[in-house]
Amino acid sequence: MTNTVNLTLPEAYQLAYRALHSNGFSARHADAVAKNVTAGERDGCHSHGLYRVLGCVRSLHAGKVMADAEPTFTDSAPAILRVDAQGAFSLVAYQAALPTFIAKVHHCGIAALAINHCVHFSALWADIEPLTEQGLVALACTPSHAWVTPAGGSQPLFGTNPIAFGWPRQGQAPFVFDMATSAAARGEIELHRRANKPLPEGWGIDRQGKPSTDAASVLQGAMLTFGGHKGSALAAMVELIAGPLIGDMTSKESLAYDQSTGSSPYGGELIIAMDPERFLGADKEEHFARAEGLFNDMAEQGARIPGGRRFKARQHSEQFGVTLPLTLYKEIVALCQ
Amino acid sequence: MTNTVNLTLPEAYQLAYRALHSNGFSARHADAVAKNVTAGERDGCHSHGLYRVLGCVRSLHAGKVMADAEPTFTDSAPAILRVDAQGAFSLVAYQAALPTFIAKVHHCGIAALAINHCVHFSALWADIEPLTEQGLVALACTPSHAWVTPAGGSQPLFGTNPIAFGWPRQGQAPFVFDMATSAAARGEIELHRRANKPLPEGWGIDRQGKPSTDAASVLQGAMLTFGGHKGSALAAMVELIAGPLIGDMTSKESLAYDQSTGSSPYGGELIIAMDPERFLGADKEEHFARAEGLFNDMAEQGARIPGGRRFKARQHSEQFGVTLPLTLYKEIVALCQ
Repeated sequence: MTNTVNLTLPEAYQLAYRALHSNGFSARHADAVAKNVTAGERDGCHSHGLYRVLGCVRSLHAGKVMADAEPTFTDSAPAILRVDAQGAFSLVAYQAALPTFIAKVHHCGIAALAINHCVHFSALWADIEPLTEQGLVALACTPSHAWVTPAGGSQPLFGTNPIAFGWPRQGQAPFVFDMATSAAARGEIELHRRANKPLPEGWGIDRQGKPSTDAASVLQGAMLTFGGHKGSALAAMVELIAGPLIGDMTSKESLAYDQSTGSSPYGGELIIAMDPERFLGADKEEHFARAEGLFNDMAEQGARIPGGRRFKARQHSEQFGVTLPLTLYKEIVALCQ
Repeated sequence: MTNTVNLTLPEAYQLAYRALHSNGFSARHADAVAKNVTAGERDGCHSHGLYRVLGCVRSLHAGKVMADAEPTFTDSAPAILRVDAQGAFSLVAYQAALPTFIAKVHHCGIAALAINHCVHFSALWADIEPLTEQGLVALACTPSHAWVTPAGGSQPLFGTNPIAFGWPRQGQAPFVFDMATSAAARGEIELHRRANKPLPEGWGIDRQGKPSTDAASVLQGAMLTFGGHKGSALAAMVELIAGPLIGDMTSKESLAYDQSTGSSPYGGELIIAMDPERFLGADKEEHFARAEGLFNDMAEQGARIPGGRRFKARQHSEQFGVTLPLTLYKEIVALCQ
């Protein structure tokens, strides 16, 4: 007897869609979330895969996400578009904003998209790829919940505050990274707690502010940023530019809003995109060939090209489908009343 | 007998200016460089202080920097300004570009400034402050020379690739960080070599790609990025967006161009600035007050506010002047023929 279930990508999408829609998400939101979690599963990012359906439905029942809100827009400057998700997940707002945002990037050369009042559970690379597909260079970041202490501090204040970046490559997968500014993901620490395994050093501190390798103590205390004070500076930057700069919450405010329901962070996301054609004009090909030289130099000495592992998993899943733990599969099926 | 010399800030500036101008830099370039190195000395950043005058003059005599070039401009898109330093230091080009760049930021809400064909020795925080003084949020980055290996690699490829960020604060010093994406500055490793001191672990590898704490071996081998593969991803981003995206050199190309003269990196710098007024309109004050809440929460738990140490040194220097080692003072005086 096998403990896993194999699904084609359309089957995985249908399962997620049915669970979301039958629990009350509008067709538009259920479709966007189902596509997103199927893409996570497909790319081997199980932490952003189909298991997220459970959390999405839980957030809905806890009253922490809107099921059918339609986004609204504010065209606040030639190179700034703001989209208000109206308390729904970020995904529909992002998709709705894309055409106008891309037009602004093409016209101005660089532009910013601020998503406001969104519940955010999804990986940022999924917001980068639609831009690299258009030949644009893109950056994205978002605060989360206050779980991470600033360097030199002892109390949680920053979120895991991911930063993602993408660079388009002709005829092959883009260069894309998407990294938390915390030393580890919160889910990793949860997994260590469940497995009763000690944490690697440098991941967190206990409530007294002392370094700890006990997962439960760190979950009660605070996580650390990656790379010491430098990672901490970047985490602070994310709080600022994807929080107050766009008129939205810090990670501390998001956690207070959550009222211990364990829902996804609520707040904003900032995306900045640049059009290489507007920087380089007719010289673009020549300079992008030099970027390929950089990637070749990385690969030749055995350095990993960010995103490479994910795109390899994608090719595999497109051919062979994805494999879910049987228990997870049954939990999602049980949601499809 | 004392081994140091105390100078007021105007005296420090005059000394630097005379050394630069009498060696052939035009009045405009000598003024910009002298102001910059005096500001570094004033802020306690001795590695970007008056000792840089020696390197600037050496670069000039090596034919690696133009003494009197005037910058030229390309207005390539509504939100992009490119300025060509014509082989001179970046500073005059930056200053000349500032008024048009700031007007673009105010108009578009976000804009990018690309400095091209510049020799770059100066700290990036000095390029951030003129923007935070105008109430803008700013980011800057630049490649350098290929001294740093990508995570998982064994050969130098990336530069120390600094990233700087600034956030304006009303009535007080801005929040500014300026950090190399390498684990340590190259100058730090040089100092360890001279002092015959072992390096901390994690700073570098030898020519065989093995971790080393021997400074000479690391200078022959490669430096490491901060924070492992995450710092490496950021270093790659800097190569791309302040290199090929703006039509300028990677760190590897810059080092090849240097031909072992030991001059400063030659290439580009990218600066992105955003206008909070265009994001937030009348709500700006309310949201910026929330950013102050974040800074207060950091300070209350003992976390360092980036830039704080520098601004404290500045206050001290403005009152008491700066103190140079006598040997350095004499070396600079000797340059003033």
